[in-house]
Amino acid sequence: MALLLQTFPERAAIWSRVFSEAGEPLVCGADQVSDPAAVRYLACWVPPPDLTIYPNLEVVISVGAGVDQMPKMPEGVRLCRTLAPGIEEMVRDWVVMATLMLYRAMPVYLEQATRGQWQTHGVPLARNGRVGIMGMGRIGQLAAETLTGLGFQVSGWSRSGAPAGGVEMFSAEELDRFLGQSDVLICLLPLTGETRGMLNANLFAKLPEGAHLVHAGRGAQLHMPALRAALDTGRLASAMLDVTEPEPLPQDHWAWADPRVIITPHVAANTDHREGAEHALRVVRAARAGQPLPGLVDQARGY
Amino acid sequence: MALLLQTFPERAAIWSRVFSEAGEPLVCGADQVSDPAAVRYLACWVPPPDLTIYPNLEVVISVGAGVDQMPKMPEGVRLCRTLAPGIEEMVRDWVVMATLMLYRAMPVYLEQATRGQWQTHGVPLARNGRVGIMGMGRIGQLAAETLTGLGFQVSGWSRSGAPAGGVEMFSAEELDRFLGQSDVLICLLPLTGETRGMLNANLFAKLPEGAHLVHAGRGAQLHMPALRAALDTGRLASAMLDVTEPEPLPQDHWAWADPRVIITPHVAANTDHREGAEHALRVVRAARAGQPLPGLVDQARGY
Repeated sequence: MALLLQTFPERAAIWSRVFSEAGEPLVCGADQVSDPAAVRYLACWVPPPDLTIYPNLEVVISVGAGVDQMPKMPEGVRLCRTLAPGIEEMVRDWVVMATLMLYRAMPVYLEQATRGQWQTHGVPLARNGRVGIMGMGRIGQLAAETLTGLGFQVSGWSRSGAPAGGVEMFSAEELDRFLGQSDVLICLLPLTGETRGMLNANLFAKLPEGAHLVHAGRGAQLHMPALRAALDTGRLASAMLDVTEPEPLPQDHWAWADPRVIITPHVAANTDHREGAEHALRVVRAARAGQPLPGLVDQARGY
Repeated sequence: MALLLQTFPERAAIWSRVFSEAGEPLVCGADQVSDPAAVRYLACWVPPPDLTIYPNLEVVISVGAGVDQMPKMPEGVRLCRTLAPGIEEMVRDWVVMATLMLYRAMPVYLEQATRGQWQTHGVPLARNGRVGIMGMGRIGQLAAETLTGLGFQVSGWSRSGAPAGGVEMFSAEELDRFLGQSDVLICLLPLTGETRGMLNANLFAKLPEGAHLVHAGRGAQLHMPALRAALDTGRLASAMLDVTEPEPLPQDHWAWADPRVIITPHVAANTDHREGAEHALRVVRAARAGQPLPGLVDQARGY
């Protein structure tokens, strides 16, 4: 009946309190499991290599919003990601900030500041900027709403091109046309077999000259040498990355020192420990009651 | 009947075209004036020392949004500032960007990046942040709208405390209470006798510990030594300035090199030359027709 939590002590302490207050059993750490058959639910970032040691495992819960780090689940085991209120808004805020920073030439002004140089450049109006958002899930829709409110011409891209966020949508087949009108390209895609390595030379070549890249998807989607080449040719004017491959980005990586690239260390959002625990509690109770699981992942699609 | 324009050649060329197309007389440069008595309107950033050389002068138009650089007008001469569509939105965008940058610890992440350091810090939710806007004119209201939409708890301060922007308003007498609940303080005030030097040690002392300052008012409102002291004591965590005193900020000024301060060279907005010319055209025609002047300044208040 128990949830097994595998995580670091700081998170474990808060989850223990939340589950204890709720009267739900929680076991912290595999070494505390006396009967593997009693483990029905497992919460972790990356599970142990062999999940079959828990013969009655029903649900694995990612303690983060992403599940791309998860291996294939054993037959019959469902996978949930953490839905914590605030995560989407945090990423939206980072994306709005990054879009404005690149559109308003902050990389240029920050570089000038290192030399104490006061030099103005033209100020572009948001309403003259075309923003393309790849990945129009909840976060993409929130970002579209705010950026539209600032006057940007926003469009979205998803596999289906289905209506989302009240903006013009492009489907998988319309990718080239979508890219050709994205002065700022925002990537919010989940990491899947299809999106791995997708931000590459071929894709950058279809952007308008001097475009900007805002990347809050996953590091493995971006081919870093292609990014550097696109910056060198002027195809891309600047980029802001919250995700890299690998993470942490090595201290001597060229991107840290390149004034055209701004990097934040995967802090577009983080899951509050208490909110994560409360989500896990809802998953456990829903599973036991035979109700739909919050945050259930379509394992065939990968998100 | 003519408008005299005193400005640099790039702006003069565009104004000449706009006035020519409109069939309105324009004289570029005082040395081109053959009959001073024919000058009824003057457009400039700073006028010549003695305006009485134009005995029939009716209106002076500032070619920018600000008029604090203007001397006292001769008796009977009206003063207009430039209202160009887009100026308010540009400043709004800069203010939203700066607020997010400080709230989301960009000064910290930018400093870490200079050393290739990947270190995360807690991610604050916008809805837990209290933003106080000083100056609730059109720009303040636009900023309040966007920041409220992101979830921030926004309040405003103006002399009267009159309702504005749909947020809680504080009046001149309630300044201390307003400051005490401003985790991010945004200054959008015009420069007047009352606001000169207003951002000083006394004011900073009333902010919450670790507050942030976003300054898009005028440089002379901020006492730079007080800013540095507030950063050193931790009263202020960071500041983002688009205006300084003097401008340009000297290359060897401490603020350029301080990682807690981000400076942009007065680029929150600029007036598009064509839009500025069209505004001047509207002022001239309104003056001639005896209609209300767009952008008319209350010279007693100074804005």
